[in-house]
Amino acid sequence: MLKLLDVQNLIKYVQSVGMEPFFHGLAETIEADFKRWGEFDKMARVASHSPAGVIELMPTDDGKFYGFKYVNGHPKNFEKTLQTVTAYGMLADVDTGYPLFISELTLTTAFRTGATSVMAAKYLARKNSSVMAIIGNGAQSEFQALAFKASMGIKTLRLFDIDRAAMEKTKKNLDAAGFDVYLADTPHDAVKGADIITTVTADKKCAKILTDDMIQPGVHINAVGGDCPGKTELEKAILLRSDIFVEFPEQTWIEGEIQQLDKDHPITELWEVILGKKAGRTSDEQITVFDSVGFAIEDFASLRYLYEQLKDTDYLQDVDLLSVPTDPKNLYGLLNGTDTQNREYLDLIPNVL
Amino acid sequence: MLKLLDVQNLIKYVQSVGMEPFFHGLAETIEADFKRWGEFDKMARVASHSPAGVIELMPTDDGKFYGFKYVNGHPKNFEKTLQTVTAYGMLADVDTGYPLFISELTLTTAFRTGATSVMAAKYLARKNSSVMAIIGNGAQSEFQALAFKASMGIKTLRLFDIDRAAMEKTKKNLDAAGFDVYLADTPHDAVKGADIITTVTADKKCAKILTDDMIQPGVHINAVGGDCPGKTELEKAILLRSDIFVEFPEQTWIEGEIQQLDKDHPITELWEVILGKKAGRTSDEQITVFDSVGFAIEDFASLRYLYEQLKDTDYLQDVDLLSVPTDPKNLYGLLNGTDTQNREYLDLIPNVL
Repeated sequence: MLKLLDVQNLIKYVQSVGMEPFFHGLAETIEADFKRWGEFDKMARVASHSPAGVIELMPTDDGKFYGFKYVNGHPKNFEKTLQTVTAYGMLADVDTGYPLFISELTLTTAFRTGATSVMAAKYLARKNSSVMAIIGNGAQSEFQALAFKASMGIKTLRLFDIDRAAMEKTKKNLDAAGFDVYLADTPHDAVKGADIITTVTADKKCAKILTDDMIQPGVHINAVGGDCPGKTELEKAILLRSDIFVEFPEQTWIEGEIQQLDKDHPITELWEVILGKKAGRTSDEQITVFDSVGFAIEDFASLRYLYEQLKDTDYLQDVDLLSVPTDPKNLYGLLNGTDTQNREYLDLIPNVL
Repeated sequence: MLKLLDVQNLIKYVQSVGMEPFFHGLAETIEADFKRWGEFDKMARVASHSPAGVIELMPTDDGKFYGFKYVNGHPKNFEKTLQTVTAYGMLADVDTGYPLFISELTLTTAFRTGATSVMAAKYLARKNSSVMAIIGNGAQSEFQALAFKASMGIKTLRLFDIDRAAMEKTKKNLDAAGFDVYLADTPHDAVKGADIITTVTADKKCAKILTDDMIQPGVHINAVGGDCPGKTELEKAILLRSDIFVEFPEQTWIEGEIQQLDKDHPITELWEVILGKKAGRTSDEQITVFDSVGFAIEDFASLRYLYEQLKDTDYLQDVDLLSVPTDPKNLYGLLNGTDTQNREYLDLIPNVL
């Protein structure tokens, strides 16, 4: 039987271990997988565009496990009171091709995006950072805040969103989570005194959420929302005086803030910074940008983390999604009633965690 | 809630309607989708190769629904008493990106491959065909036989496999299903007097299951087993004196029997024959080859057929795989307990069947 983690069980599990410990474990697994970057088969995602949005499949494998995420991006979904981004994913065994685990990934994508942001910030933001601005207070904003509290102790937030109700929603959630939250009147007001600026807006256009005059020396910009062709958040002038760090360059050149730059502009891959091969922040005056677009290895690590934590628990349910006849050449026997056995197969698969 | 069709419920459903009616309905849906070939976004599959086999994602969409299949091919799996090929798939709504339906596709792939084979044979085999040889008596052989019985009334079979136990397994299953089955001693013996020759072997190499001397004028060859680079079943000389029909040329040139031919060799797309744009069989002496490799539209049609037939029945179970908070901007509310509602969303999606 395949194992499945549904939404309610993920919520119960996160509530049982606590949000910050969950972030810690997830961030550690993502960082461990960034450290073995070379072991992964890195494919560009397969995107299917329509007038309403995009549906993507994001596969990767490390030679032992294969994982993929199904994810959509539909900016107008909120008009139907639906999520802009939903996702689920799967982990399989490379040696047999057998699926092992299916999981919700909508909440998990929000968690892993926050965990990846703070993993980058640990190497790129000033060590004494204590104030973060968050521009864009939609579905992902609290997850960004919680990740930075869990890993960097950031408790002072300055929020801005063009939707006042969204700001107030986020303040209410984060007040209750122990933050000191200021609601700004403008983006300029929001970034005043901020050591870290997180942009996580949803509009699908080349926007200038941050303009050059807003950026003081020493700031780290965590640019999360610009993540597909034609969707950016930073004025180009900011990029030209910053040091820019990315996940997977082949993808970021197409989807990230750097789609605004010439292809010979210098960028640094985050995994090389984590491994100490390249420098992260080198001075207190430097402006750093993490041009985050989200990469398959982050989802792979999330699936692996959830499966490792939960595989022997009641949080997972069994799903009978794969026929495993007694005689592999007699698939038809399942239909004519001569083989009623739909076997357990996990004990036949070498790479079960 | 997402709907899910598991293995046991598919088996129960097929048993309740009967195998031949199920084949009829499935074949009609596949043919309907081949007739609107131009409406589909046709992408090459995304393959991840390892020493043990291949894992593939096969997506397509028709502008209304998006579907994909996860499928593996691991020739050595039988040594572990596992299936060589397993699969499952998903259907989503293009306008919102929301998943609607997840289904087992291992049994369904065997059904749809048989249905596609006989759809081609109706246009390519002689109308008075009554005898079929099946070389390769593994997991898919009975499905091929049943499809040809359901749609063309073929009841006389000549079987061959290098594994005698597999032949006897297939004979036992097909005797019980009302066929007249002869077990041949050699491939040459098997094809004697056959109007249609189906090759459905599993070995991953360039084999010559059929040699030129075995092929009489007027025969239709249903070449199912040669379906990936380096895996073929027909001697090249057969191809040079046959008319060759394919699903999606871009894929068949890489994966099919025609990987043995020069790229300017004439081939015909099956959908054009079905629509009457190109000729199928034109004489009783002609040798025709359906170079089947399996294409995403066949899986899409299968998912659509199963979802249409079963969506309001108890054969499907609800799976809570997608978080749908009351306020789409308050995903976090599901975690801090302020939003306990994980809403039904199917009524918010325009394209539900």
